[in-house]
Amino acid sequence: MARVVVDVMLKPEILDPQGKAVHGAFGRLGFDGVADVRQGKRFEITLDGEATDERVAEIRKAADTLLANPVIEDYTLHVENGQEDAQ
Amino acid sequence: MARVVVDVMLKPEILDPQGKAVHGAFGRLGFDGVADVRQGKRFEITLDGEATDERVAEIRKAADTLLANPVIEDYTLHVENGQEDAQ
Repeated sequence: MARVVVDVMLKPEILDPQGKAVHGAFGRLGFDGVADVRQGKRFEITLDGEATDERVAEIRKAADTLLANPVIEDYTLHVENGQEDAQ
Repeated sequence: MARVVVDVMLKPEILDPQGKAVHGAFGRLGFDGVADVRQGKRFEITLDGEATDERVAEIRKAADTLLANPVIEDYTLHVENGQEDAQ
């Protein structure tokens, strides 16, 4: 079963209050040397079977309509075959 | 300026209601062939200067304490040097 990962982030010019809050917490907890933090969403979509071009195109269409708001968000999409090793 | 990306996902054994909701929407909008959807958080952390081992270790510590809840979440961390091309 192939997996498609869609990462959705706010466009750079859009203010990211969540990212700002995390950035502030970094400073308060003594983690310095951090210039900026942006927070977004990650979708891991497991397909039935292989990631054919048609299926990836369908997922891209879903990302455009369902997962990301094209007015304020950008997304990147990539196919993963093996399981990513978790931390 | 280097960038460290931390992807935080719920552990596989933890129910993901947001992922279930998105999965349901996939079906209603006619995107079939999707076995499962998991939703998580993505943090893009821009560092002042280079991503030295010490700094990455600090970000890992911040991920353990601030970005992920180790009881229910796993995270992966990787360093990006170039800017990822947005969609």
